[in-house]
Amino acid sequence: MSALADPDRKDLRPSAGFDPGQCPVRDVLDRIGDKWSTLLVLTLSDGPLRFGALRRAVPDISQRMLTQTLRDLQRDGLISRHVFPTQPPAVEYRLTPLGRSILAPLSALTRWADDHHGEIRQARAAFDAG
Amino acid sequence: MSALADPDRKDLRPSAGFDPGQCPVRDVLDRIGDKWSTLLVLTLSDGPLRFGALRRAVPDISQRMLTQTLRDLQRDGLISRHVFPTQPPAVEYRLTPLGRSILAPLSALTRWADDHHGEIRQARAAFDAG
Repeated sequence: MSALADPDRKDLRPSAGFDPGQCPVRDVLDRIGDKWSTLLVLTLSDGPLRFGALRRAVPDISQRMLTQTLRDLQRDGLISRHVFPTQPPAVEYRLTPLGRSILAPLSALTRWADDHHGEIRQARAAFDAG
Repeated sequence: MSALADPDRKDLRPSAGFDPGQCPVRDVLDRIGDKWSTLLVLTLSDGPLRFGALRRAVPDISQRMLTQTLRDLQRDGLISRHVFPTQPPAVEYRLTPLGRSILAPLSALTRWADDHHGEIRQARAAFDAG
């Protein structure tokens, strides 16, 4: 029996005989699991921010990548974009209710990363040493 | 005050004035958040598997990407590689205790993806139509 056939564990694993395009892990995590998406969602967890404030909060993101990632997050329904008719127009981004719903599982993962960062760096150093 | 300066929420967000190479979210999630790493860790959650069994469990991964991702996960200390002196040698991969420790937060995130996949697909369709 394949390790994938245990029905009790199907929540943890991709399904056998799947269509990759239909698989939520592939379809959703591949997008949201990317570093910039995660960082931007977490950065918006406190409240709405303008484009410039987001850029200052994540200073190592390029303007092009910030624009693209915000657009992708908006397309996924995780953030919404609000334009205020000032001169020049102000554009603000905020988490939608769907975007807020990912904060708990996402922060569990970032907490794991924080807690185990030292171990991972040690493992990498040991691996690279041979 | 920057939205990033609220000390009560620092677990959720990248720190201000950071060194990107030192930031656990960047350093750890960017690697482990990738689709193939996530899928391989979850696929190994039931027990050790040989290379061929992993390949059958994740049929849309290329052999080259499987080899590289397994190597990266081994370098991060999440999986270990065991060679058995058969003819030809059998190579088996298993989660380390560190690798097992990520299953709970990772499965919370895949559960979220499963629960909200429909909403995300709807949001994408609406965005693309609009």
